Amino acid sequence: MSKGLPKRSENYSEWYNELVKRAGLAENSAVRGCMVIKPYGFAIWEKMQRALDDMFKATGHENAYFPLFVPRSFLEKEEEHAEGFAKECAVVTHYRLKANPDGKGLIVDPAAKLEEELIVRPTSETVIWNTYKNWIQSWRDLPILINQWANIVRWEMRTRIFLRTAEFLWQEGHTAHATEQEAVEETERMLGVYADFAENWMSVPVIQGVKTANERFAGAVDTYCIEAMMQDGKALQAGTSHFLGQNFARVFDVKFVNKENQLEYAWATSWGVSTRLMGALIMAHSDDNGLVLPPKLAPIQVVIIPIYRSPEDLAAISARVEPLAAELRAEGISVKYDDSDTQRSGWKFAEYELRGVPVRIGLGMRDIEAGTVELARRDELTKETLPIDGIASRVKELLEEIQANLHRRALAFRENNTHVIDSWQDFTTQIEEGGFLLAHWDGTPETEEKIKEETKATIRCIPLNSAEEAGACVYSGKPSARRVVFARAY
Amino acid sequence: MSKGLPKRSENYSEWYNELVKRAGLAENSAVRGCMVIKPYGFAIWEKMQRALDDMFKATGHENAYFPLFVPRSFLEKEEEHAEGFAKECAVVTHYRLKANPDGKGLIVDPAAKLEEELIVRPTSETVIWNTYKNWIQSWRDLPILINQWANIVRWEMRTRIFLRTAEFLWQEGHTAHATEQEAVEETERMLGVYADFAENWMSVPVIQGVKTANERFAGAVDTYCIEAMMQDGKALQAGTSHFLGQNFARVFDVKFVNKENQLEYAWATSWGVSTRLMGALIMAHSDDNGLVLPPKLAPIQVVIIPIYRSPEDLAAISARVEPLAAELRAEGISVKYDDSDTQRSGWKFAEYELRGVPVRIGLGMRDIEAGTVELARRDELTKETLPIDGIASRVKELLEEIQANLHRRALAFRENNTHVIDSWQDFTTQIEEGGFLLAHWDGTPETEEKIKEETKATIRCIPLNSAEEAGACVYSGKPSARRVVFARAY
Repeated sequence: MSKGLPKRSENYSEWYNELVKRAGLAENSAVRGCMVIKPYGFAIWEKMQRALDDMFKATGHENAYFPLFVPRSFLEKEEEHAEGFAKECAVVTHYRLKANPDGKGLIVDPAAKLEEELIVRPTSETVIWNTYKNWIQSWRDLPILINQWANIVRWEMRTRIFLRTAEFLWQEGHTAHATEQEAVEETERMLGVYADFAENWMSVPVIQGVKTANERFAGAVDTYCIEAMMQDGKALQAGTSHFLGQNFARVFDVKFVNKENQLEYAWATSWGVSTRLMGALIMAHSDDNGLVLPPKLAPIQVVIIPIYRSPEDLAAISARVEPLAAELRAEGISVKYDDSDTQRSGWKFAEYELRGVPVRIGLGMRDIEAGTVELARRDELTKETLPIDGIASRVKELLEEIQANLHRRALAFRENNTHVIDSWQDFTTQIEEGGFLLAHWDGTPETEEKIKEETKATIRCIPLNSAEEAGACVYSGKPSARRVVFARAY
Repeated sequence: MSKGLPKRSENYSEWYNELVKRAGLAENSAVRGCMVIKPYGFAIWEKMQRALDDMFKATGHENAYFPLFVPRSFLEKEEEHAEGFAKECAVVTHYRLKANPDGKGLIVDPAAKLEEELIVRPTSETVIWNTYKNWIQSWRDLPILINQWANIVRWEMRTRIFLRTAEFLWQEGHTAHATEQEAVEETERMLGVYADFAENWMSVPVIQGVKTANERFAGAVDTYCIEAMMQDGKALQAGTSHFLGQNFARVFDVKFVNKENQLEYAWATSWGVSTRLMGALIMAHSDDNGLVLPPKLAPIQVVIIPIYRSPEDLAAISARVEPLAAELRAEGISVKYDDSDTQRSGWKFAEYELRGVPVRIGLGMRDIEAGTVELARRDELTKETLPIDGIASRVKELLEEIQANLHRRALAFRENNTHVIDSWQDFTTQIEEGGFLLAHWDGTPETEEKIKEETKATIRCIPLNSAEEAGACVYSGKPSARRVVFARAY
C-alpha cells in the first residue's frame, strides 16, 4: 500500500488531491487555476481523445480549428450567452510589453492598447457562427458537422485539478442544420456518443437526461447531459450536448435558402466533453491504494515485474519474459517490462498499483522452475499463480473482465446509492448521506432554487427514459408528472 | 483547369492566397491575424501531427500539457528571451467584463485587474522550466523528454495564412539533460527527425544547418534548422531545434545533483514545427491547377468518379466500384467514391485536381464494357487506360511513385536554383532571380546585416555537412572557411 495516501472514507477530497499528485497525473502550475497535465495523465487523455475522435468521425464529423480569441462585440451579441460568460473571462487588452523606464523588467505598453478587447475563448459558439455565416447560403451547404479540440479559459474562482480549472482542454462540436428536427436528432446522437464512451471506455455508468432551465448552457434552448456518480455519492456532469435552436444563427445573421426557396435561419447544436472526464475517471474507480484504470484507457495495460537477486536470475527471467511480452504486444496489448535495477520489486508492485495498471505479472526464479507466473488484477487486488503457457490469452480475457467488472461495480454502487424519496424530511436526511435522490418536482425554477439553498442539492437532470408517474413535489407538494434526479454535485 | 486561379509565374503571392482559399484549406477570421483552419486543411495537419507524434514517441518522448499563460515576471527572467518576445505578445490584464453602465454591451471591469499581467504563450520555455524546477533534483530524474501540442500567439504585424499568423498551432519539445553532450545530441536528433519528416512525408528536400547568431532563437546557445526552397526560389524555415545550454536552468534555478555528487544546472533543448509546414507543403509542390499533395499526407489518396448519363449506368458503375474501393481500403488506402448527383463529372475532375488528390480513377460505361478504368496522376497530370483487374496493386505502386516523384522534382528544382556565388556583383544580380546562393561570409553580424539591408537576403544557415573551403567573403573580402546559404525568405 502506498504510504500515506489518505483513505477515501476519512477525507475523500484529500484522497483525490493526493492521488492526482502521486500517480503523476497533474499538478497545479504557477499560474492561478491552470494545471500542468503530466505525461502519465496526458497519456490517459490522449487515449480518451483518440476514442472520442474516432466516434465523432464515425458519425460524420470533421475536425477544424477556430481562433483562440473572441472579440468583445461577439460575446455581447447573444444576451444570455454574454451574461453566462462575461463574469469570468480572461481579457486581452494590449499587444505589447516594453522595458520599464523606471527600472528593471517589463511593463504593458500603453501605446499598444487594442481598439476592441479580445476574450480568450470560454467556448466558441460566437466565433464559429460568425464564420458559418460565410459558409452557409443554401440547404445544399448543410449540414455542417464540425468538431474542434481546443483549450478553453473560464476564470473560475475556486479551482480543483481536472474538475474545475481556469484553463482546460476539451472538444467542442458545432453543427448547423437545415431543420429543427435534424438539429435535435444531432443533439441526441452526440449525447448517445458521450454515454457510449462513458459506459464502454470509462466503465462509468451514466444517466442521460435534460437539464432544467436553471442549469442550461447560456444560449441554449435545451441542454442534454450525462450524469455520473462518484464514490462519495456526489454527481459529476460528464458531458453536455446543446440544442441551440436558431439563437446563434439569428444574432450572427446566418440565413440559408431552404428547399422551399425561402430564407431561413440555420439550426444549431454544440456539444462538449473536457479534461473533467479525467476527474470522473479517477473518482469513479480508484481506491485507497491508488488509481484504478479501465484497461481500454490505461496507458500501460500490463506490467511485468521480475523478482530476482542476481544478474543471472534476471537474465533467466528476461529470457522468459521477452517472448511473452512480444506475444502480448502482438495482441495489441500495451506492456511494460520493468527490469530497472534502481528499485526493488516491492516498491514496483506498490508503484504500479498506485498508477492503476490493470494487470501485473510477477516472475521469480521459482516461477521459472515451475513454469508459472503470478497474475494480479488491480481492480480486485487478487492474484493467482498460473502456468506461463497460455498466459497471453488469459491476460486478454482478464483485461476484458476488468473493463466489465469496473462498470458492474460502479453501477452497483450507483444503484445502492440511488433513493426514491417522497417526503421533504427524507430528502433532507438522505441528502446528507449523498447519492442520487429520485423525487418529484413541481417544475418551477423557484422551487429548484429553494431546494438548492436549503440542501445544496441541484437537479442533475430530468432522465430521458423516466416513466411518467403522477406525484407531488417533494418540496412544494404541487403536482408533478415525473421524478427528477437530485444530488450534490461537483 | 480551375477557372481563374492566378498563375504562379504571374503572381505567386496571389496564386498562394487563392489556392489556400479555393482548396478549402483555411481562411482569415474576424480576429486580426488569426486563421480558421477548415476541415480539409485540418485533415492534412492531423496527418502531419500523427506522423510527427509517432516519430517523437519512437525517440522516447512523451506528451504533456502546460498552461496557456506566462506570467509577465517569467518572461522577464531570461533577458534575450524577453527582448525577443515582449514586442509582440497578447497581454491579459483583466479577468472580467461587466455590463456597460452607460449603455448597451460589455466593458472591461476595472475592479477585475490582475495583479500581474499574463502573456498568452509565445513559446513555453519559461513556464516549463519553472515547472521542471520541481521535477529535477538528481541525475536520476534526467533526461526529461517532453513534447506539447499547443496553440501559440505572437502579435505579428504582417500576417499571411499558415506562414505567419498571430495564432498558430505547433508542437514544442522541451527536454532537460544531465550533460551538455546529451543535450547537443538531442538537439541534433530532433533536427534529424524534422528532416526525415520533411523529406519522407512532405517530399520536401531540406538543408540541415545552424543559424547565425543574428537568426538564433531568443535565449538559445545554438539554433539548428531545416530550410526548404519554395517554387518562387524563396527559402522557408520549416523547423528549428535549439540547444539552450543552461540559460533557462540558470534563470529558473533548476539544479540537480550529478553523478559526482555536485550541484549543477540542467542542460536544455527545445524544438518545434508549426502549421507553417502547411504553407511549405502547399508552396513546394502545387501548380496552376491547384494543390498537389504527397500521398502520405493526402486526406483522400484516391478519388473514384463515375461518368454516367442514366441511373442505370450509375448502378452498373457502382457495382464495379464497390469491390475495387473495398480492395483499396483493405490496402490502407483512403478512397472517396464521389457518386453525388449534384455536380457533373467534369466539375468533379477539376475539383479534386484543385484539392490535390494524388490519384483519380474514372469509370464510364465504355470502361465497364471493356473492363478498364482511366487512371490519372495529379503530380504529372497524365492519365492512362488500364484493365480494372489488378488496378489496386497498380494504384498502390503509383502512390509510392508520386511520393518519390514529388521529392525528386522538388530536389531538382532546388538544385537548378542553387548557385555558387563568388562576387558581390553576381550576388546582387542572382538574388533578384531568387534561389539559394552559396557564398563565403566573413562570420560577422555586421556583414550579415549589411547584406540583408542591401539585398533582403539573409543567411538561412551554415549547412551541417558543408565542406571546409577557404575563400573570401562575398561582401567584405575577408577570409572565410566555408560557404553559407543566402536567400530571401518567408
